[in-house]
Amino acid sequence: MNWIDEGALYSQIGLFLREDLGRGDITTQSIIVRNTRARARFVAGQDMIVAGLEAAEEVFLSLDSQQQLEAFVSDGEPVEAGKVIARMIGFADVLISAERVALNLLQRLSGIATLTNQYVKAVDGTGAQIADTRATTPGLRLLERYAVELGGGYNSRFGLDDGVMVTSNHVAILGGVSSAVKTAKEKLGYLHRVAVEVSSENELKDAIAAGADVVVIDGPSPAEFLPLARIARELSSSVAIECAGKITPANVREYAAAGAQLIRVEALTSAATAMNIGFQVQPF
Amino acid sequence: MNWIDEGALYSQIGLFLREDLGRGDITTQSIIVRNTRARARFVAGQDMIVAGLEAAEEVFLSLDSQQQLEAFVSDGEPVEAGKVIARMIGFADVLISAERVALNLLQRLSGIATLTNQYVKAVDGTGAQIADTRATTPGLRLLERYAVELGGGYNSRFGLDDGVMVTSNHVAILGGVSSAVKTAKEKLGYLHRVAVEVSSENELKDAIAAGADVVVIDGPSPAEFLPLARIARELSSSVAIECAGKITPANVREYAAAGAQLIRVEALTSAATAMNIGFQVQPF
Amino acid sequence: MNWIDEGALYSQIGLFLREDLGRGDITTQSIIVRNTRARARFVAGQDMIVAGLEAAEEVFLSLDSQQQLEAFVSDGEPVEAGKVIARMIGFADVLISAERVALNLLQRLSGIATLTNQYVKAVDGTGAQIADTRATTPGLRLLERYAVELGGGYNSRFGLDDGVMVTSNHVAILGGVSSAVKTAKEKLGYLHRVAVEVSSENELKDAIAAGADVVVIDGPSPAEFLPLARIARELSSSVAIECAGKITPANVREYAAAGAQLIRVEALTSAATAMNIGFQVQPF
Amino acid sequence: MNWIDEGALYSQIGLFLREDLGRGDITTQSIIVRNTRARARFVAGQDMIVAGLEAAEEVFLSLDSQQQLEAFVSDGEPVEAGKVIARMIGFADVLISAERVALNLLQRLSGIATLTNQYVKAVDGTGAQIADTRATTPGLRLLERYAVELGGGYNSRFGLDDGVMVTSNHVAILGGVSSAVKTAKEKLGYLHRVAVEVSSENELKDAIAAGADVVVIDGPSPAEFLPLARIARELSSSVAIECAGKITPANVREYAAAGAQLIRVEALTSAATAMNIGFQVQPF
Amino acid sequence: MNWIDEGALYSQIGLFLREDLGRGDITTQSIIVRNTRARARFVAGQDMIVAGLEAAEEVFLSLDSQQQLEAFVSDGEPVEAGKVIARMIGFADVLISAERVALNLLQRLSGIATLTNQYVKAVDGTGAQIADTRATTPGLRLLERYAVELGGGYNSRFGLDDGVMVTSNHVAILGGVSSAVKTAKEKLGYLHRVAVEVSSENELKDAIAAGADVVVIDGPSPAEFLPLARIARELSSSVAIECAGKITPANVREYAAAGAQLIRVEALTSAATAMNIGFQVQPF
Amino acid sequence: MNWIDEGALYSQIGLFLREDLGRGDITTQSIIVRNTRARARFVAGQDMIVAGLEAAEEVFLSLDSQQQLEAFVSDGEPVEAGKVIARMIGFADVLISAERVALNLLQRLSGIATLTNQYVKAVDGTGAQIADTRATTPGLRLLERYAVELGGGYNSRFGLDDGVMVTSNHVAILGGVSSAVKTAKEKLGYLHRVAVEVSSENELKDAIAAGADVVVIDGPSPAEFLPLARIARELSSSVAIECAGKITPANVREYAAAGAQLIRVEALTSAATAMNIGFQVQPF
Repeated sequence: MNWIDEGALYSQIGLFLREDLGRGDITTQSIIVRNTRARARFVAGQDMIVAGLEAAEEVFLSLDSQQQLEAFVSDGEPVEAGKVIARMIGFADVLISAERVALNLLQRLSGIATLTNQYVKAVDGTGAQIADTRATTPGLRLLERYAVELGGGYNSRFGLDDGVMVTSNHVAILGGVSSAVKTAKEKLGYLHRVAVEVSSENELKDAIAAGADVVVIDGPSPAEFLPLARIARELSSSVAIECAGKITPANVREYAAAGAQLIRVEALTSAATAMNIGFQVQPF
Repeated sequence: MNWIDEGALYSQIGLFLREDLGRGDITTQSIIVRNTRARARFVAGQDMIVAGLEAAEEVFLSLDSQQQLEAFVSDGEPVEAGKVIARMIGFADVLISAERVALNLLQRLSGIATLTNQYVKAVDGTGAQIADTRATTPGLRLLERYAVELGGGYNSRFGLDDGVMVTSNHVAILGGVSSAVKTAKEKLGYLHRVAVEVSSENELKDAIAAGADVVVIDGPSPAEFLPLARIARELSSSVAIECAGKITPANVREYAAAGAQLIRVEALTSAATAMNIGFQVQPF
Repeated sequence: MNWIDEGALYSQIGLFLREDLGRGDITTQSIIVRNTRARARFVAGQDMIVAGLEAAEEVFLSLDSQQQLEAFVSDGEPVEAGKVIARMIGFADVLISAERVALNLLQRLSGIATLTNQYVKAVDGTGAQIADTRATTPGLRLLERYAVELGGGYNSRFGLDDGVMVTSNHVAILGGVSSAVKTAKEKLGYLHRVAVEVSSENELKDAIAAGADVVVIDGPSPAEFLPLARIARELSSSVAIECAGKITPANVREYAAAGAQLIRVEALTSAATAMNIGFQVQPF
Repeated sequence: MNWIDEGALYSQIGLFLREDLGRGDITTQSIIVRNTRARARFVAGQDMIVAGLEAAEEVFLSLDSQQQLEAFVSDGEPVEAGKVIARMIGFADVLISAERVALNLLQRLSGIATLTNQYVKAVDGTGAQIADTRATTPGLRLLERYAVELGGGYNSRFGLDDGVMVTSNHVAILGGVSSAVKTAKEKLGYLHRVAVEVSSENELKDAIAAGADVVVIDGPSPAEFLPLARIARELSSSVAIECAGKITPANVREYAAAGAQLIRVEALTSAATAMNIGFQVQPF
Repeated sequence: MNWIDEGALYSQIGLFLREDLGRGDITTQSIIVRNTRARARFVAGQDMIVAGLEAAEEVFLSLDSQQQLEAFVSDGEPVEAGKVIARMIGFADVLISAERVALNLLQRLSGIATLTNQYVKAVDGTGAQIADTRATTPGLRLLERYAVELGGGYNSRFGLDDGVMVTSNHVAILGGVSSAVKTAKEKLGYLHRVAVEVSSENELKDAIAAGADVVVIDGPSPAEFLPLARIARELSSSVAIECAGKITPANVREYAAAGAQLIRVEALTSAATAMNIGFQVQPF
Repeated sequence: MNWIDEGALYSQIGLFLREDLGRGDITTQSIIVRNTRARARFVAGQDMIVAGLEAAEEVFLSLDSQQQLEAFVSDGEPVEAGKVIARMIGFADVLISAERVALNLLQRLSGIATLTNQYVKAVDGTGAQIADTRATTPGLRLLERYAVELGGGYNSRFGLDDGVMVTSNHVAILGGVSSAVKTAKEKLGYLHRVAVEVSSENELKDAIAAGADVVVIDGPSPAEFLPLARIARELSSSVAIECAGKITPANVREYAAAGAQLIRVEALTSAATAMNIGFQVQPF
């Protein structure tokens, strides 16, 4: 992540805290003496790839800069159930008031990294890459892409402005793959490579004939994908061949074996669930 | 949702669009003639409770106020796989550029409403309520709580500032349930009812003795929950009895039958996944 | 005050300075050499409870972090006319440019604390509490409540979202105290205690019969209050008894003696005037 | 008020509502059916000059644009105790939820206009003007100056950036009135007239000798003011003569009679208290 | 320009007005009766390509939505000295208060469009394109690029995030063109075409050998450019050939004739000066 | 520049960087190892007055606070072509990513200071001052005025709110110079001096007769200016005499010699072009 991204991340954490704290944690402020020193630990409740530990640390620091986190694994590393991920030293009130926001980030991002890593391991050695999509949680794309990367996935275009993809809805309006691709090449080909979604042999052929740099074969079973990928390679030695659709950790290797160079998986971000991670506070 | 909330929702949608569009949808702007009239429809890819249709409509309207959505079901209603949820008339470029943000909201919120509804149906007739928790996606709590409500769930406190809950981490710092509850009652009891998490028979007894208005029995199996709920009711006719922990649609009815008045389920928001909903655009 | 509150306070001080300085203090910048070292002192022009000294310090620090304030009394402490409240060391231009904003805060907040303290002393030993209301200066509620607390007063609900109060206007719309209280108890009683304004014996009885947790007897003279308070206590040993209306430092003790547990006084914030405090700058 | 000012005013009202409503008016939203039509009226509880009625109307409109206010007096007009100031037609929930913010503005601004008007009437026919100062409530200067104007007062400089005033603190640093005024004339005299605070005959003479355009005689009793004003006029036929200090409605006419052209009164904004104005809602 | 861009443009205009008006146009507000109807016209003081007329219209509308502008030429069209560009009907105070901001935009943007058009005409018929660079006025890139486009120029990458360009400073750090281009192709070549700045024959050869999609020959005279462009074309039939440096309207055609497909000219935005355009207001 | 101004400047620099970097410098981040130490230097490509060096330094620091700049000349000092203006030590990626924004500021502001200085030198010894106008780049007025000051120019009013100027458009609406000036004196003369634009002998006489403090003779040739300036001085020994219009470095001294005390030159900011300044990065 770069300078701008980190800045965006920090400002978001302030908003996340405000969402949860509102006018303040009335319970904690009423019953815990301010600045009581305490320690805490994050404990993994299941096997996972950890993601979001730095973000979680930022949550505590945003509330009070004197909290200290010592991590036993780094973002992107695996951890087994029962292991302590990190421990903290700080103030009881800060630790408790920031706990939920920190966990919400850490649990969700670790869920994405862990799911991504299942796909990545499944295609190990094939040379294929597992890529994310724009099916992210609104407002969290930056963080969720970071989790995908930590899980070993590839970040495809961030948004509609930094990559060219002709989709089936574009094709429906323009009346065919061919004219859509030609127009895109003419208007945008100077700076960008042009990708196009295709869902039949005819569309595939039209796309390549029109000069598409990347074809995204959308929705096939592994058995359907294989002959289409072969045709694509026969028609062009340079076109990039991708697939998208309802790809699972169980069948993803078949697509890779059939020639998919990049596999786009919506589920990485839209079907990941929060990992089980506990946060236990204790007096010092 | 109230006035203030709606305002917050609208401003967020602008941010969501900006996240996805950045400096603009370069593909669509290059290949689709501006203001080409088109129609589109949302199609359910699986059975679900729909949630977020109004939010999705707002996404399109935020980009261009001339888009029209006609819904065939309202937020909170069930729909079967294959059915058309809504259709739209508008401009091709607007429909395509806003599609992904609208779907990201609609798919995710419908996922939460659908999962919530499974829990709600499972306790049908018992009088128990299924409540959400603060384990929401950072930045989306307002929308996710709305989806829980649409699924038939109960919204517990929004954040740390509008409800009192003594948790196990508070107890750890204070050295016991009793003093924690007493302090909370003294400081906050004038305006609020005091809830406390307990995880053993002793803690339960201490909590009720100290004047807790609500006891949240955390983590028991249904078999463990039953005797604790009985003890609570014997000790106080007025204390509210809740449970929390790893509750599933399969076992939730057992807790209700054992006397849980309100069942807090983190999974409603932390384990829901996006529903399969398609969006197909066509020329007019 | 908590983390969130302090953050809110600091951002406001920036706005307060911008309001007064606009594009800059043209007089001072033209005639005072920048960074000329100087000292200054705040002098009490009348007896008062000091409030807002930390806020005033923040004003100077917001303009330039090298100013130092040494306080001779703390916020909430009394000071006699003629005494030096605090002295400062810093730069002449900063001290002069920030003076007015600092004084505007300090004088006004000290006015509120001082007036509050008159009421608090008047009920000394009775056990009754003097509470503020929402009749605060728009935009300054956080600071004004803080001043009330420094004067010995009790902070009632911050706003419409963190406490339940059925007012006479609610009752007028709903056609009676009884249904209003019952609905409020049913909808909100799970998390909150329900307070209701009453202005007659009948309304008082209806409120208690409907389950009100708190009755606020609004507008009576001390003589009228006494019998109503007695009836309330006879009907319920647990209902909290409050009064509100045109209560003065001269008559407040009568209400306390008649059984008011909490006395709501709009004047604490709406009728307080600025205390006379001078600020004298001198060369070093 | 101009375009820019009105824009500033509206954005502030949104903040004022947010301060009071937070996440929403939980009482009203729970017990009043949304969009129940209702009417209301503002009733004067004492004689006053009304100020802030348009601002109050904006408060209701900011919450819901369908509220209608019919005013029986305009901002700046007098009203007697017991009279209805305005009546409203709208929705019960909106009227009740916005009531407190609207009253807080209307009561406070009317207090300022009423107090200002007492001073203005006291100097009627003398030609002297009653001017406000920068001793305003932080964040509300725009509105409070507007109230002063409605009461018949004169708005002096808005802030430190749009007028030149050499104060006693400037003089203390610079070691004398003479050099302070000369520097200010040299640096700022091209665009601005230069005012200077003086508190003795010597300072007065130095100021005029140094070319001050305006002398502000600070702190004298009426008896002390008279000879100083005479000296000023003898020394210069064009210098403007002002006074400032602890001026009351009872003694203000003496200053005017002694030659004060403009009388600066901190109390207009720092000692005004909220007027008694009621707001009664009824079903339609 | 797209939806997002227009939104950004409008919000900027509010800031531009605030910069000039501050707390308001004190002269106009004091001497012109509000809402006095008036008319005005923009008159060209020299031959030019008009750019920014819609932006200028927005300035007036931002201040008051009732102003009407009738344009006699559209943005991007030429106009001769002495001609009326547009006329307006509105209010005298609004027209006068907004005049300067509107002119500042219109004059500057027309200056850019006019200068760009000189370059564009100079290469007419050669097939070469005149492109802008990132040497724009900070904060105005969106508007200045728009003016370049109106003048017939080509918009190259908006910023550092939407196009890949290896510059001489990158090469200096990496120790050679070859490794820089190879790394860029490997990391970014999947979505983007890679451009590289070269300043010698050796660098040019290395760049093409390393797979550069675009070579930008930086700084040559037309005589130096010709042989380098020939070598580039001999080495690759597909590499795009660009030039950059101190190109003038007088010599630009030589570069085009020598084979430059795209000519990057910093001067379009960094050396354009404001066009002479008058704005005359008259009573109605 | 004062505190408020500096704050405004810093916030703008963040926006300038965001404009150029968007989601990040994809080229640099891909090919330069993060935090590679490097050095760089700014080299003057022509003779100039340097302006904006501190602003440029802020650009680098805003991206990463560890960059160090050592300046060999200060803002406002002259430098000859070929000389090194400043050198930097820092990180290669930061230096390269911030380069363009820093140069855009430094080149443009130096252009303004250099052009201003040509005018200033041309009137050397005459006592006349060269003043800027409001013909600045929207959004950059603060910085551009600063550059004018560095070049030896005089900053006239910042905006419409801090100075009074009756223009020809005001006069057109009011039907004559005389009434316009009289109204302005009456309404604003207490705090401000009143300037008025005149373009004929009659208008000049009317303006002085009506009490104008400053006359701005607009549009004359030097030959036309001389007799008007004489008339003005004959009519009033105190009126300030200014001129405005198409003044060039070649003819400006004639106006000064003819009696212009202050000469308003739009070109200082509207016709300045970017200076040629290079930025060369090298490995350490």
